[in-house]
Amino acid sequence: MIGLGVMGRNLLLNMADHGFSVIGFDKDSQKTGSLEAAATAGTVVKGVGSLESMVQQLQVPRKVMMLVPAGKPVDDVIESLLPLVEKGDVIIDGGNSHYTDTLRRVKYLEEKGVHFMGMGVSGGEHGARTGPSIMPGGNERAYQHVKPLLEAIAAKVNGEPCTAYMGKDAAGHYVKMVHNGIEYAIMQLISEIYDILHKGAGLNNDELHQVFKQWNEGELQSYLVEITRDIFLQKDDITGNRLVDVILDKAGSKGTGKWTSQDAMELPVAVPTIDIAVAMRTISGYKAERVEAAKIYANTVKPFSGEKQAIINQAGEALYTAIILCYAQGLAMLFQASRELKMDIPLQDVVKAWRGGCIIRSTLLKDFYTAYSNNPQLANILLDGPLAAIVQQKLPGLRSVIVTAVQQQVPVGGLMSALAYFDAYSTERMSTNLIQAQRDYFGAHTYQRIDKEGSFHTEWGA
Amino acid sequence: MIGLGVMGRNLLLNMADHGFSVIGFDKDSQKTGSLEAAATAGTVVKGVGSLESMVQQLQVPRKVMMLVPAGKPVDDVIESLLPLVEKGDVIIDGGNSHYTDTLRRVKYLEEKGVHFMGMGVSGGEHGARTGPSIMPGGNERAYQHVKPLLEAIAAKVNGEPCTAYMGKDAAGHYVKMVHNGIEYAIMQLISEIYDILHKGAGLNNDELHQVFKQWNEGELQSYLVEITRDIFLQKDDITGNRLVDVILDKAGSKGTGKWTSQDAMELPVAVPTIDIAVAMRTISGYKAERVEAAKIYANTVKPFSGEKQAIINQAGEALYTAIILCYAQGLAMLFQASRELKMDIPLQDVVKAWRGGCIIRSTLLKDFYTAYSNNPQLANILLDGPLAAIVQQKLPGLRSVIVTAVQQQVPVGGLMSALAYFDAYSTERMSTNLIQAQRDYFGAHTYQRIDKEGSFHTEWGA
Repeated sequence: MIGLGVMGRNLLLNMADHGFSVIGFDKDSQKTGSLEAAATAGTVVKGVGSLESMVQQLQVPRKVMMLVPAGKPVDDVIESLLPLVEKGDVIIDGGNSHYTDTLRRVKYLEEKGVHFMGMGVSGGEHGARTGPSIMPGGNERAYQHVKPLLEAIAAKVNGEPCTAYMGKDAAGHYVKMVHNGIEYAIMQLISEIYDILHKGAGLNNDELHQVFKQWNEGELQSYLVEITRDIFLQKDDITGNRLVDVILDKAGSKGTGKWTSQDAMELPVAVPTIDIAVAMRTISGYKAERVEAAKIYANTVKPFSGEKQAIINQAGEALYTAIILCYAQGLAMLFQASRELKMDIPLQDVVKAWRGGCIIRSTLLKDFYTAYSNNPQLANILLDGPLAAIVQQKLPGLRSVIVTAVQQQVPVGGLMSALAYFDAYSTERMSTNLIQAQRDYFGAHTYQRIDKEGSFHTEWGA
Repeated sequence: MIGLGVMGRNLLLNMADHGFSVIGFDKDSQKTGSLEAAATAGTVVKGVGSLESMVQQLQVPRKVMMLVPAGKPVDDVIESLLPLVEKGDVIIDGGNSHYTDTLRRVKYLEEKGVHFMGMGVSGGEHGARTGPSIMPGGNERAYQHVKPLLEAIAAKVNGEPCTAYMGKDAAGHYVKMVHNGIEYAIMQLISEIYDILHKGAGLNNDELHQVFKQWNEGELQSYLVEITRDIFLQKDDITGNRLVDVILDKAGSKGTGKWTSQDAMELPVAVPTIDIAVAMRTISGYKAERVEAAKIYANTVKPFSGEKQAIINQAGEALYTAIILCYAQGLAMLFQASRELKMDIPLQDVVKAWRGGCIIRSTLLKDFYTAYSNNPQLANILLDGPLAAIVQQKLPGLRSVIVTAVQQQVPVGGLMSALAYFDAYSTERMSTNLIQAQRDYFGAHTYQRIDKEGSFHTEWGA
């Protein structure tokens, strides 16, 4: 392992716990020392300060993993490794590299006979130590060398490991990118539901805790709902109040959500709920402008006039449906990207790997797994019969919650984009015929007809 | 002029009509011939098949404009021109190049002492011939050489030309890109209003024509409303019915809307209505899937129960407000990009250049011009007092229309994203504190507090 930051270190200790002899390299001698000190008794864990020494001690074919910041550091590590490795060795990038970088590196090392694998890891520090979701991609024969290791350290659901081969070339990092895009979207949805119930319907943190607790015991069971449940109880050490209330409303980001949206547009494929999740984090950063605008518009949340339990029930249905619509967008993106970029991503295995260990794990993944088992070539999970029945049943809740939020002036862009996606996707004839008419009017871009093949242009207004 | 396609040819004839002696080059001798044939009697227009011959005949400093497809063709033209031009000459790219390409070319030619200007032109074929909106950027001294020419051929509003210096480096193409992003968003909004009134409230094409006609005589007066008014009347030569009804609902795109969204995310700045306009064009392309989904969900528009005139009035208010919110997003993007990319874009001149000739021209631009005249450093037009008063007054119409559409199952992602933008932008405290809490919970990404400076991390659930 190259790079003994908290993720690299924890992954390595996890490997050692499963009986693998591991060796970690870092220039920082404190990190190599503390690695050895943190090892479980009886495991074989070595920390070294020399890359040469590390590589020399590895069995052939060597399996070298790095967990270093994305970008130049990855290329630097590759260049330092090249004189030390041989044909057939496997280099794995377990960080958050952009898939285009991974693709470039795969091709570069392929020419030298070295296998390069891009591998997504999700689960945070804790997951890395106890069982993350692991998304490896690249050369399939190289994958076979690391398969037993990855299956051993991955999270387990019903005894099955949350990892699988994600496809060719940069598929591992691509799947991880889309995972993070879905994560952005679900977090945005949860924050809107919180807004509706808290500022809208007046629930306090204890009540919110109870609502999320109950949701997490049913069909909404998921990691993000679970931690949200806990967040509402967390005390602030400084004021003694609840911590969530003293946290500034600026949401940061490390860019993977943005990548998902940008690359979706490039394909193109529509992921509007991820797009608006990215936009809302950006608006959250306009704090000074928002304070000024709030004064000008005196935009306060309008009083709630409904029944608390009714809005809670609708909010649960809305969240559940909108979350399905987020997964639908992300998985449709993988379906399309797999074809366009020739990555052969097995969607069934993707949702299997996401069932445990990762940030977007939820009980829903098993429904998606069933859907892809029935039809591995499913273009969109919304076209799956059983899932369609669920969406159909819960949609009224999503509509009701949006109507309430619009009237109360609570911003719910994520929920609205999910509904807009559904309403457009399930419409045989959209109103985009007018857009194409406009395009032909001012730019002679031509149009197709509903009754004849071909491409047509009209001299409008002539 | 290099490249005598319809845009290049029309711009050149426009120049000639204003007393400038012009010369056009194209490899295609038919195009050079027809150029001369199309010239107005008494004007000086030459068509040549040799680049050398064209350049030799130009006055120093030479002013060479090209209108060729974006990408490699532009670089090819530059390379062919380099041996023929001298220091101080001006090369202008009037096509739809991506601003990063323009920036690269500006720097490349600057080293050789040649001025390169990126220039956006909007108005379609007709506008190019009779008066487009022109957005030139680059070296300001070079701009002075072409200023009289551009001011002569541009559209005029109250006698003032719809062109001005847009700023340094690639500012011209950047402004044009954002212009097109706003265009995408407004077209999406109009198509949604059409959907609400047509499928929702049951208006036929004649009624729609009347509504848009009336709107175009009032505060909604704009090119896109005007052509929409006409589109509803256009007869189909083949069936004798209205043409708009036989146009397939697949909306194409040439990528500038996508660029706007992708680059907005890069800055970052939030342009959710442009994002969803791009997404909806993408969904419009999923025709086969939509037909399948429509069968599964039997998603039909629910009957309309309100009063026709009431929904028409609300739709007008909704469209007006949402259009202002689109401009707000685009102009805020220019404000931010100007600072980040050090382009010194004068927003006052941008909206002045957009008042006439271009696709997004509308009577609203004069309100924006007033706003920027009062405060050239306005971060967002929503913070301008008079505009805020308009938005405040019309917002209820936008909310009502969205509620009706959500209940009737008409997809209105553009309108919803505009409202979500407003409701978030005008909120002092968003619910993104929860997102930051989640980020710190699973990824130790830290958070800021509302009551203390600094960056904090909590061991959640400990």
